[in-house]
Amino acid sequence: MEPSFKLLGWLRDYQRADFSEDLIASFTLVLFLVPQGLAYALLAGLSPQAGLYASIVPVVGYALVGSSAALSVGPAALPSLMTTAALAGLAQVPPADYPVLAAALALFSGLVRVALGALRFGFIANYLSASVVGGFVTGSALLILLTQLPNLLGIDSHAANAGAMIERIWNARRDIGWAAPALSAATLIALFACRAWLATGLRRIGVPARPADLLGKAAPLFVIVIAALAANAAALPVKVVGPLPPGLPPLALPLPDTGLLVRLLPSIAAIALIGFIDSYSIAQVLAMKRRETVSPDRELIALGLANVASGVTGGFPVSASFGRSAANELAGARTQLAGLLAAVWMLVILLVAVGLFAHLPLAALSATIVVAVVQLIDLSVLRLAWRYERGDAWIFIATAVTVLVAGVVDAVVLGVALSLALFVWRTSAPHLAELGRVPGTEHYRNRLRYAVEMQPGVLAVRVDESLYFANIRFVSDAIVGLLRSRPDTRCVLLVLSAVNAVDVSALQGLRDLNRGLADQGIALHLAEVKGPVMDRIKQSGFLAELSGAVHLSTHAAMRALEGEGVVDFVI
Amino acid sequence: MEPSFKLLGWLRDYQRADFSEDLIASFTLVLFLVPQGLAYALLAGLSPQAGLYASIVPVVGYALVGSSAALSVGPAALPSLMTTAALAGLAQVPPADYPVLAAALALFSGLVRVALGALRFGFIANYLSASVVGGFVTGSALLILLTQLPNLLGIDSHAANAGAMIERIWNARRDIGWAAPALSAATLIALFACRAWLATGLRRIGVPARPADLLGKAAPLFVIVIAALAANAAALPVKVVGPLPPGLPPLALPLPDTGLLVRLLPSIAAIALIGFIDSYSIAQVLAMKRRETVSPDRELIALGLANVASGVTGGFPVSASFGRSAANELAGARTQLAGLLAAVWMLVILLVAVGLFAHLPLAALSATIVVAVVQLIDLSVLRLAWRYERGDAWIFIATAVTVLVAGVVDAVVLGVALSLALFVWRTSAPHLAELGRVPGTEHYRNRLRYAVEMQPGVLAVRVDESLYFANIRFVSDAIVGLLRSRPDTRCVLLVLSAVNAVDVSALQGLRDLNRGLADQGIALHLAEVKGPVMDRIKQSGFLAELSGAVHLSTHAAMRALEGEGVVDFVI
Repeated sequence: MEPSFKLLGWLRDYQRADFSEDLIASFTLVLFLVPQGLAYALLAGLSPQAGLYASIVPVVGYALVGSSAALSVGPAALPSLMTTAALAGLAQVPPADYPVLAAALALFSGLVRVALGALRFGFIANYLSASVVGGFVTGSALLILLTQLPNLLGIDSHAANAGAMIERIWNARRDIGWAAPALSAATLIALFACRAWLATGLRRIGVPARPADLLGKAAPLFVIVIAALAANAAALPVKVVGPLPPGLPPLALPLPDTGLLVRLLPSIAAIALIGFIDSYSIAQVLAMKRRETVSPDRELIALGLANVASGVTGGFPVSASFGRSAANELAGARTQLAGLLAAVWMLVILLVAVGLFAHLPLAALSATIVVAVVQLIDLSVLRLAWRYERGDAWIFIATAVTVLVAGVVDAVVLGVALSLALFVWRTSAPHLAELGRVPGTEHYRNRLRYAVEMQPGVLAVRVDESLYFANIRFVSDAIVGLLRSRPDTRCVLLVLSAVNAVDVSALQGLRDLNRGLADQGIALHLAEVKGPVMDRIKQSGFLAELSGAVHLSTHAAMRALEGEGVVDFVI
Repeated sequence: MEPSFKLLGWLRDYQRADFSEDLIASFTLVLFLVPQGLAYALLAGLSPQAGLYASIVPVVGYALVGSSAALSVGPAALPSLMTTAALAGLAQVPPADYPVLAAALALFSGLVRVALGALRFGFIANYLSASVVGGFVTGSALLILLTQLPNLLGIDSHAANAGAMIERIWNARRDIGWAAPALSAATLIALFACRAWLATGLRRIGVPARPADLLGKAAPLFVIVIAALAANAAALPVKVVGPLPPGLPPLALPLPDTGLLVRLLPSIAAIALIGFIDSYSIAQVLAMKRRETVSPDRELIALGLANVASGVTGGFPVSASFGRSAANELAGARTQLAGLLAAVWMLVILLVAVGLFAHLPLAALSATIVVAVVQLIDLSVLRLAWRYERGDAWIFIATAVTVLVAGVVDAVVLGVALSLALFVWRTSAPHLAELGRVPGTEHYRNRLRYAVEMQPGVLAVRVDESLYFANIRFVSDAIVGLLRSRPDTRCVLLVLSAVNAVDVSALQGLRDLNRGLADQGIALHLAEVKGPVMDRIKQSGFLAELSGAVHLSTHAAMRALEGEGVVDFVI
């Protein structure tokens, strides 16, 4: 972790040779930003130009302190979905207020992230388990697919959860014509075909690998253009983006009234958290390839600044997009200058060429969202968890279902609570092994797994978990239970080789155990206590009370306790 | 844990010789039950006979399945305080309804406990850490002391939290006379003096140890009797208990209307949980002395039945009392028959001698509560935590303060949430040690603590914590960080001797790490993987992906990797 955050640190070491690479990458980025900006703005429930605005200034915000070279911050699927869910959750707000509220979501979730990053709270990313993130992303992807159905079918409909969405589509089923579904189907087939075969096909006809892969990835823009041209030529009766206002992004502070802001707070917190984790994960994948580490605190601040920038320039919550960042990297981006140059090109497009977008069919844009979002559905974690640890699989499913039936915020809260509960539950009944000596060696093993020699009068127990409040009673009870079946026991030896920590409750529990055993004339000994654990136990004064001794190894303890019919100790 | 719960199991093996001991103990119990029953009923905000009712049938409920021989279940400080807090929390309920609501709290918290016990949920006791319980009991004791001030000062006042209580006492300050404070002070001095010197004094004048200790413990009743006689003789103008209705406890099902019941639900849950933990801890301390274990599930059911019995016979929430149980044990109680006999004597008192209590001064009863409750204030956990683990100390303080300023339910919720958060936080940044060989041995130790030999090209890292979602990213980042300072590394060896579990997120993280390292031509090896962890990892298919191998010991791994300038492996 850096001691301080240098502004534009990457610019100071900028190499001239990097420029041409960054320039080429910037053109690639534009090919992605145009369709994604328009489509994700529609997904967020906003007019398309908001997506263009969100593609410009936010990049500067990220580039100021962000540590990833190739990360492309801008319109993205998850924050757009969360925006639409947040706004749909506000009953009786006229849709005319949506742009201001969406910008406010960006501004405040950005400020939250800057504050959290400054307070070094980047570690919060770690508290979402793979199952929660997997379930959340999968549930969100399914929900996004559902939200695209009205555009794909050519009807008007908007709702926040799966049930309401399906109901409204059903009610509007008579309005479905032939033109929009036909155009959607053709675009979808073209997009999936390009993704499956274009890059390989181009390579096969002799195009070098990198350009072939890049063209394959940039196909959505060409498909959309062709769809638009075809729809116009055939004068298809489909909805189009319509005229967009040319000109610079508006500069304004989006401040809704306090009551509304309070109702948006859970959404702001969820967007801040999920957006960060999404973006940070992508930055990590990119950094791993370059043998770099990314600082979570720096990423929090950088993403926060990007969102603040989006909020004050007519945008909506932004995040990193995996597909766009990967394409940027593949195109050779060396630094954030690629993103900054792309922002300049987007600004130029916004000023002089925004009229071109008026005739883009909504159905074709929705088709590109579908293709992008289908890739987010990743059931590999679910499959792994199902085999490996069923509880995690259920958390995945519960989180995904909650996204669909209740909402994104509820899903995150539920998922985190369940995964913490599962973890605590797992560690609350640790594995205990009663040890015996492997004959002729100095090794001691579980008597249930190995043929071992037991030493009369000594009960040696290895605890395979750190001791803390949720398991100390279980461990004490288990030892007392073992003692009942071994009434001749004079010493209990606790082997702590797998105990990485002992908290206050556990220390208290050990004191109670020591005292309870001493009342019965049984001494409590410890062996293989780890350095850091020993340091603390020493400091606590427990050793003065301990009826037995602390031994370096199990074998040393067993030799010391050998033949002790009755141990002499003072309580 | 028993496979099934035998009803009155202790009665089948009853020895004739035990009877005289149980009979003597039953008389001792009565000496405690009379003043405690009256005083705790007043503390619960009820009329004193409720405390007598709660001393009779509940004992039968506990004795049916309870596993502790000497535990005395009946009126107790914590459930009484929680009752008064629950009822004070219901605005606009006339005090005339309090008896029914208090009985309903007992009935429903009892039913909750029976259900939890039948579902084997006794393990929930483990989720309250020593700091939470300590903070809760200390805060409650302070709150109980405050609630006794009006009686001690001879004024009328009732409130649910510390602030309101202090304010009301301040407002009533002009009503404070001389008689009640004088009587309180005299009683308090007598009680504290008895506790400090009576037993030792009696022993010194030749009384045998056990009767001396018992008389010392039973002193409160005698002090109250003397205080009552003195107050009557001097015709002191102090409030007295007043006439109590003689007769059997009323048999009635206390069913408040649904709305009220719903508002009582958090209190019912808190009483069920705290009452159980309180009682179970006492049962454990008693059982430990006899080399027995108590089953938490059985204790839950037994305490639940006791509360159901209390609820349908005009009582209020009951629990075990530590002082009373310890005296019962000291008096020689062998089985729950001691408690059952005491219940019979209490019934006789209720039928024929209840008129005697009419002239007991409230101030003297409150003084006995003060003396009993002062013993509950135990700062040893706080002191220990302050030295040992500051975070736990703050949880203790936060829980205690929350009891005083907000309420008992809030305090429990906050305490549990904080202690889980602290545990997760503690395990989220585990200790990592880079290992080197202790020269001339097969031992590998932390290079920062020992003078060790490093093997070129191999980075051996021991992780001192189970791997799970909250720390896997930290561990991966730390390893990548170490790699940056060791650019010649060809193999990373993870030594998992202290890893007791690897959850799905961590497995996923290891896969990502393996892939990321492979991209850089670095092989990932594992060593000293524990049996249960290895079983699961094998099953997950991760070993097929692993670029390196799994080694039995660190030394075996180091020998296998010796001299590997470049490792040959297939990704």
